[in-house]
Amino acid sequence: MTTIGFIGLGIMGSPMAKNLLKAGYPLVVYDRNPPKVQDVVSAGAQPGLSSRDVAARSQVVITMLTDTPNVEAVVLGPNGVMEGIRPGATYIDMSSISPVFTRRLAQQMANKGVDMLDAPVSGGHTGAVNATLSIMVGGKQEVLDRCLPIFQALGKTIVWIGESGAGQVAKACNQIVVGLTIEAVSEALVLAAKAGVDPARVREALLGGFAQSRILDVHGGRMLRREFAPGFRLRLHEKDLHIALSTARELGMALPVTALVHEMMNAMQATGRGELDHCALVTLLEDLAQVEVKPAAQR
Amino acid sequence: MTTIGFIGLGIMGSPMAKNLLKAGYPLVVYDRNPPKVQDVVSAGAQPGLSSRDVAARSQVVITMLTDTPNVEAVVLGPNGVMEGIRPGATYIDMSSISPVFTRRLAQQMANKGVDMLDAPVSGGHTGAVNATLSIMVGGKQEVLDRCLPIFQALGKTIVWIGESGAGQVAKACNQIVVGLTIEAVSEALVLAAKAGVDPARVREALLGGFAQSRILDVHGGRMLRREFAPGFRLRLHEKDLHIALSTARELGMALPVTALVHEMMNAMQATGRGELDHCALVTLLEDLAQVEVKPAAQR
Repeated sequence: MTTIGFIGLGIMGSPMAKNLLKAGYPLVVYDRNPPKVQDVVSAGAQPGLSSRDVAARSQVVITMLTDTPNVEAVVLGPNGVMEGIRPGATYIDMSSISPVFTRRLAQQMANKGVDMLDAPVSGGHTGAVNATLSIMVGGKQEVLDRCLPIFQALGKTIVWIGESGAGQVAKACNQIVVGLTIEAVSEALVLAAKAGVDPARVREALLGGFAQSRILDVHGGRMLRREFAPGFRLRLHEKDLHIALSTARELGMALPVTALVHEMMNAMQATGRGELDHCALVTLLEDLAQVEVKPAAQR
Repeated sequence: MTTIGFIGLGIMGSPMAKNLLKAGYPLVVYDRNPPKVQDVVSAGAQPGLSSRDVAARSQVVITMLTDTPNVEAVVLGPNGVMEGIRPGATYIDMSSISPVFTRRLAQQMANKGVDMLDAPVSGGHTGAVNATLSIMVGGKQEVLDRCLPIFQALGKTIVWIGESGAGQVAKACNQIVVGLTIEAVSEALVLAAKAGVDPARVREALLGGFAQSRILDVHGGRMLRREFAPGFRLRLHEKDLHIALSTARELGMALPVTALVHEMMNAMQATGRGELDHCALVTLLEDLAQVEVKPAAQR
């Protein structure tokens, strides 16, 4: 079976690596944090000495890192993936990073005879553990076809979006819609609460019509129950909107509402709320309005 | 059977009045535009001479008008509803107007011995014709119970939200969520198109995850097909967000993203696009980005 190199064993990467082991893939892993390596090695993986070493020993190399600069350092930096990866190998970046950087990187990989896919995911820690991630893939469709068994060990919905970078674009679009919808639901529920109307009843009524969304359902419910433990950390959503905004700038276009919601997420971080779930964005408006979104029964 | 007075026979009011006739209610109608009265009289209604006359001849008076000033004029102005309505009668305002004004009006009606319900609807012209409107009701619950057969002749989902004005608050919340979600979908799809990624594939991928919403489905589909004939006119959505914003101001709270989307709707009207469907909001971003949200197959 294909030997897979896996770099980045955080809250997402670690359960994903373990699912690849469960599917029977020989795995070589690396993380700059040794205890995280040890944990996956206990589950059956081989430890790599560096990103370069992992790449040199694998036919498929996967990275799952938190931001564009991290991917740049791990892939292009000293002892990085680029130094070790072999012509004919495949590189899959499952991090959520800049689509523009992704396209550049795919070109550099191609120059070395390496096929690259960008394959960011949605579904969070739970999706990673249960192998139910949604995976948005950019790159050559035949490369995706070849790697499909690997993706099927990690996720449920695997969608080819387009050429290199297209997976990252789709992820940025996803985070725009999710972030802005959280804010939309927040403004509506805080208005209801401030007007003395039960926000739980308003949510119920709105779920039956054109205002329906998974965010109104799931995150609206969390807001009412004051469940702000993550879930998906607000500071990572801020990072994703930052990627969307810098991509838009490089392409020459404006995302006015994304920019405003990004500023609100910045304000959340500045006031110590970056580690909460992203639906805690509602508390920013609540502060301004001096009211809380609580069902009438609990007030 | 209860004689109903119906004032305001526009794109919504006219089919609603006809559904009440179909349900067997004796109907007295008025509109400042005589041909509209004539049309509903042909269907079996009695013509009233004025709003006052309609009110004097009815046990239940319904208004379906376009804005707060119109309701104010028709109810409190000369020859208005307040001059004619009888103690013991019920007044139902189905327009979408200010919750604050609604509460004041309900108090004035109570002083005259008249029960008032605010009962704004969502579902548009199609919902009005097919009697499938969603109706959000504010006022005393026992008054709603008494009037339920009337609402059942007009709509499908009838939800009691709370005391007087609560129906209007819920409607404002609905329009916030719908308007902001349209903008969220617009920013995502225009980013995809500008990045050279098929916006139709991005919409498909996003519908499978947390970004799912009825707006992404229905209005996203309309954007891709360039279907900008209304539907729900953008200028009426602008009016509804104006109501939400002035309500927020009166309550002492901020709705920052609603304010920005309201400004974008103003810009749409200023550039002659107020009569298009509200999903045409996407064209404002398209202008700025010099790109159109079209499926790759059609480019």
